[in-house]
Amino acid sequence: MLTRVVVAPSGFKESLSAQAAADAIADGVRRVLPDAELDLIPLVDGGEGTAASLAAATGGRLVALPATGPVGETVGTHFALLGSRDTAVVEMAAVAGLSLVPRALRDPGATTTYGVGELIRAALDTGVRRILVGCGDSGTSDGGAGALQALGARLLDAVGFELPRGGRELTRLARLDPAGLDPRLRDVELLVACNPYNVLCGERGVARVFGPQKGATPAQVEELSAGLENWADVLTRDLGGTDLRQGPGTGASGGLGAGLAALGGRLLPRFDVLLDHLDLDARLARADLVVTAEGALDHQTPKGKVPAEVARRAKLYGRPVLVLAGTLGEGAHDVPGVDAFSGILPAPMALAEALVRASELLTDATERALRMILLGARLPAHAEVSGTQRPSSVR
Amino acid sequence: MLTRVVVAPSGFKESLSAQAAADAIADGVRRVLPDAELDLIPLVDGGEGTAASLAAATGGRLVALPATGPVGETVGTHFALLGSRDTAVVEMAAVAGLSLVPRALRDPGATTTYGVGELIRAALDTGVRRILVGCGDSGTSDGGAGALQALGARLLDAVGFELPRGGRELTRLARLDPAGLDPRLRDVELLVACNPYNVLCGERGVARVFGPQKGATPAQVEELSAGLENWADVLTRDLGGTDLRQGPGTGASGGLGAGLAALGGRLLPRFDVLLDHLDLDARLARADLVVTAEGALDHQTPKGKVPAEVARRAKLYGRPVLVLAGTLGEGAHDVPGVDAFSGILPAPMALAEALVRASELLTDATERALRMILLGARLPAHAEVSGTQRPSSVR
Repeated sequence: MLTRVVVAPSGFKESLSAQAAADAIADGVRRVLPDAELDLIPLVDGGEGTAASLAAATGGRLVALPATGPVGETVGTHFALLGSRDTAVVEMAAVAGLSLVPRALRDPGATTTYGVGELIRAALDTGVRRILVGCGDSGTSDGGAGALQALGARLLDAVGFELPRGGRELTRLARLDPAGLDPRLRDVELLVACNPYNVLCGERGVARVFGPQKGATPAQVEELSAGLENWADVLTRDLGGTDLRQGPGTGASGGLGAGLAALGGRLLPRFDVLLDHLDLDARLARADLVVTAEGALDHQTPKGKVPAEVARRAKLYGRPVLVLAGTLGEGAHDVPGVDAFSGILPAPMALAEALVRASELLTDATERALRMILLGARLPAHAEVSGTQRPSSVR
Repeated sequence: MLTRVVVAPSGFKESLSAQAAADAIADGVRRVLPDAELDLIPLVDGGEGTAASLAAATGGRLVALPATGPVGETVGTHFALLGSRDTAVVEMAAVAGLSLVPRALRDPGATTTYGVGELIRAALDTGVRRILVGCGDSGTSDGGAGALQALGARLLDAVGFELPRGGRELTRLARLDPAGLDPRLRDVELLVACNPYNVLCGERGVARVFGPQKGATPAQVEELSAGLENWADVLTRDLGGTDLRQGPGTGASGGLGAGLAALGGRLLPRFDVLLDHLDLDARLARADLVVTAEGALDHQTPKGKVPAEVARRAKLYGRPVLVLAGTLGEGAHDVPGVDAFSGILPAPMALAEALVRASELLTDATERALRMILLGARLPAHAEVSGTQRPSSVR
């Protein structure tokens, strides 16, 4: 009755990679169903782990190199060459992710995507015909300005001086000089895997929605918003591109989406680009139960998060879906395709402890959830009539 | 398939009465199974709410009166006259419970069961033939010394002076003078509903096990232990009684069990005395699912707590049992008869917030658990063979 279980979680931000989450869930399933056939599909969403996962799934490899991190220091990073050899994957989180920004330095006005541009150049050096840029888990809010600088664009103020790095400077941007842009960009297909719900400007713009969690004060949020508005105007005028302000995905990774779109990149819904590499649909179709997970299940989940995407696809095949989450928030009930969901906390606990113990908590919560599902599976199909019930002989 | 659901929780200490817990769980069940027939059985364990619940269940009434509270002040309290009119229920928590001890005054060496003796006298005044004393949720550790004082016993030191109230004084007790004891005690049946796992003395004695949670420092625990050892010796010598040191239930309610046993009271397993009034077994036998709950599910649960007792009885009739608990601790897996269990916390949260929001959290957690059970109930009885699965036509 539960022979095949697909375990397809996201990572848990700041605590578990998708692989670690999948392993933790699998341990919990095995405690209850030791004989079940488990199919682990740690899901990538463009953020942390995307390059490594896609390299592994396609028989490709990672290319290691140094590049400029989000606060300006040199970091060891990598991009992926997929098994097909014609496609490179640049994971922005690997060189400009939030986890590379020390908490004490969380000033989203100062961080830069310069390293993303360096990785794209390195990918161009390999001669690939297609570069897939994964967005997500970013620590930056510079609209991709740093990436364009690394690729040869000059960002100039009204006097003609080049701007320093960081989203904060974009309010002073007067024009962009594209003369020095790497010419090879014209001959490569640039695909950007985005959450399409993220847009660059306006009330739902990236500075307002994500600035605070990257460490921005309310005043900084307004400064960043104004800078990104100006950035969209200058990009559109000096490079071209349609609807860089509110187009789907323009706000991805602190506006990197908009910057890459101005270079001719195509902003695509991330799961459509990424999950086909994992053969997800065929594997979901074979499942008796689908277990997915993410750090939070809430009103944001239907806006392009992993559990919503897994539930949507699982329901194409009529598969039951269980979601486990570290935090259940408002709207957890309202995710289409989710049959049941559970938090993972066994007791009152501070967030810091929950993050440290995430793997163990997830395993235990999986076990509890499976026990409940099995309780249900063992119920008689129809309630017995009251008078026919008999006590067991055990006393 | 889930037509009749029995909801039989304990109260949650310091946050929900058993009735409030039952109502919260019922709300959660109704969200998922709006047509289910719910049978609410808020369970009494001798502690808070016992007198009121048994009065309600038997068509009896509560008698209100003032008496001496655990820290010496006068409190408004009550005892119950059951519908049969020949039995009174004295709930020790109603006059000497932990919730009547302000946090700032949590000194278990000073608190007294004097009010329990006053309630027993008041019950004797009504002419009942049987007095049932419910133990549990106590704020005292005086071995019932205060209760015996209120009933007329004199506790004397070596010089012949009467001892002040409080367990701390018992190290100085030299003898007990029973001459003034209320003579009506000889003609009444005194039943004490105890957790039989609670004993007065030794390594598992009440001072060591419960002293710390009543606010005792390690030094105070040792002082209380020594006092209760002496108390057992003096009681046995001057009043009689067998095995007041380690007999089952002698440690109930800070040793009140031992004090009442020395007066001729019979210490009985609390559920055997209490639950028959609620017709529990017959109601469990009719359930398709039994939901029980308590503040904590852990290694203490099998030692006479409500979920263990409910599970044990439900299993006599082969009924599936779900337990919900505010805190899941070590040993939560090891409670016989429990098919599945869940915590109630949706997110990292401090204990104080969880206590305030307990009702809402319990309702939401019930809903989540029922959804998981229903997910299981809807699984096909046998997994389909891989090749025969078909995607639904929905896209």
